Amino acid sequence: MKPTTRIDTVSWLSADGSIHFSPSPEALRPGGKLRIIDQRALPAHLEYLRIDTLEEACDAIQTLAVRGAPAIGCAAALALAAVTGKSGTANQEALLKEVMKNARVLMESRPTAVNLAWALNRCTARIVTGNGGGTEQIKESLLREALSILEEDIALCARIGEYGRTLLHDGMGILTHCNAGALAAGGDGTALAPIYAAHAGGMKLKVFSDETRPLLQGARLTAWELKQGGVDVSVICDNMAARLMREGRIQAVIVGADRIAANGDTANKIGTYSVAIAARYHRIPFYVATPYSTFDMSLSSGEQIPIEQRAPGEVTSFAGVKTAPDGVSVCNPAFDVTPHSLIRAFITDRGIIRPPFEKNLVVFQSIQR
Amino acid sequence: MKPTTRIDTVSWLSADGSIHFSPSPEALRPGGKLRIIDQRALPAHLEYLRIDTLEEACDAIQTLAVRGAPAIGCAAALALAAVTGKSGTANQEALLKEVMKNARVLMESRPTAVNLAWALNRCTARIVTGNGGGTEQIKESLLREALSILEEDIALCARIGEYGRTLLHDGMGILTHCNAGALAAGGDGTALAPIYAAHAGGMKLKVFSDETRPLLQGARLTAWELKQGGVDVSVICDNMAARLMREGRIQAVIVGADRIAANGDTANKIGTYSVAIAARYHRIPFYVATPYSTFDMSLSSGEQIPIEQRAPGEVTSFAGVKTAPDGVSVCNPAFDVTPHSLIRAFITDRGIIRPPFEKNLVVFQSIQR
Repeated sequence: MKPTTRIDTVSWLSADGSIHFSPSPEALRPGGKLRIIDQRALPAHLEYLRIDTLEEACDAIQTLAVRGAPAIGCAAALALAAVTGKSGTANQEALLKEVMKNARVLMESRPTAVNLAWALNRCTARIVTGNGGGTEQIKESLLREALSILEEDIALCARIGEYGRTLLHDGMGILTHCNAGALAAGGDGTALAPIYAAHAGGMKLKVFSDETRPLLQGARLTAWELKQGGVDVSVICDNMAARLMREGRIQAVIVGADRIAANGDTANKIGTYSVAIAARYHRIPFYVATPYSTFDMSLSSGEQIPIEQRAPGEVTSFAGVKTAPDGVSVCNPAFDVTPHSLIRAFITDRGIIRPPFEKNLVVFQSIQR
Repeated sequence: MKPTTRIDTVSWLSADGSIHFSPSPEALRPGGKLRIIDQRALPAHLEYLRIDTLEEACDAIQTLAVRGAPAIGCAAALALAAVTGKSGTANQEALLKEVMKNARVLMESRPTAVNLAWALNRCTARIVTGNGGGTEQIKESLLREALSILEEDIALCARIGEYGRTLLHDGMGILTHCNAGALAAGGDGTALAPIYAAHAGGMKLKVFSDETRPLLQGARLTAWELKQGGVDVSVICDNMAARLMREGRIQAVIVGADRIAANGDTANKIGTYSVAIAARYHRIPFYVATPYSTFDMSLSSGEQIPIEQRAPGEVTSFAGVKTAPDGVSVCNPAFDVTPHSLIRAFITDRGIIRPPFEKNLVVFQSIQR
């Protein structure tokens, strides 16, 4: 399968200026850099960052130039490969130590990002178990593994897209919340992957993107990438979704997920629960698109998912302008939990999973790709 | 009944510097001005405007220094009285013409504000039917009528507050949306009047104010005035309300209304419908607080209420900062309609009206105060 993505959020820039998304022989030649879209400049400008130092990589992750769990994982792995590729350390043992130290620094750049640690551990495990073969061998192994992670993420998103498109039809209005698209992944994302796949197949869709307060990922990022991809998209305030549903303009909701319990209860960006309730009231199917790996079978229900509270200032000011009185109390939960009873189906890289989730999630556990 | 309001949004400033809310002999002395809270400066600063020219009054109304249907009505009536009071026109007929012309200019300052026209027509009708008595008589009649409108609005809000407080109890969490409070009225407002009344009676309430995108009236105005009034208030993004309901932190929702059909279907600020659906899902009572005059018995259902679309820029930028990509489509309906089936009761100046609304609204029509 040829790896493709509509938006090149994370890629590998070879010394000759060519762009890569998989461990091809050309990509593995020395002297390349990580290239990412600088999301801090969106939606106003499309700018790329080229990264081959540890400082640049940590800064990009910390300041959200790259965000979204899969995208962070891909970017961190390629950053480690780029930094290591530039290293002048001649001794194999010393280089190995250097890599492990750099991986730790990268991991600490965003400690709560599970994919970041997962991707870096996968890369370092590869060289540790690789039994040496010189510093050049270490450098190539790291880069090969990082490009494999990117390639796999693109393929995973593509599978979610292919499964998800079977639920859509021409002329549909689709609501999404936050950004679970190509800007959050190596590939086309999760919630937006079915939309891109359907669009590529010639289906006409009308997408409504909740702006997603307080950080406006829907307005800033989802609207930008869908527009970039040629998809018909409209931005709405979060509180307008129910009205549009009543007007008959929305036939399906697709959102991503941060964490899912074994019974299907789904933690996602704050506001998702509200959308799910409105969808139920209007009898509109509510889908969660997610890699199968997001299911945490150690959690029996959503009650066990901790909800992070974020800084009040995100709600009480914008662009330096105060929008609420001084010292007012604020609630600012980062996520909410949508109970499984409101979810019509999960769109995963292993297929569409329908209720009863508790039983069917286990069935899909044994499916290997 | 002594007219009181917790926030002096609209008042009459006598030449001696005293503040008035009713047509007392002291208030009726010549040389006074309209005084309003300048809501453009909120929530950062509490500033007052003193107005006795037509230009100042039109500017205040057009730039939303004063907003909210009842507040605009009270302010426009007092502005007409202030402008007329300053007039040097010695001839009664000429002054009458001048008043009618000024009233028309004021009306055109915000053509869609029904209360504005209603209040000004009521004032000019009073002098037209007043059979003259000299220019001083015209000036006093206008001021007396304007102060009566303010006094009546304060009393009306107080009645809504007294009826509404009977639905509340100590320790309750209450959600409100937009601003239907003292900043929108001569008195304590509609949705917030029961909260002020309960608070004044020593009841401890915890109020959650939806920030109310796109114009943030909840964050800027409702949070400000409740905090000013000593009420415990927290600001939340609109999309967080459902999460708080699930956590058991909200026991009642109270909102205002822009227009209500004969069957109880209620048009109010965009986002109200979404809150009503979430309240139903969590079995939380959803109340609409409103003057009885807001019921439009000529409309059989909410389907007949037209919904104004506002400028896309309100959604796609904030404080001059772009929050969505250039040229993206936007939906920005100013209002939505909550079907009567989601409304537990109306809290009006004539009492609490419960279902079946179609029948009971007619019963309350005959109640006079």
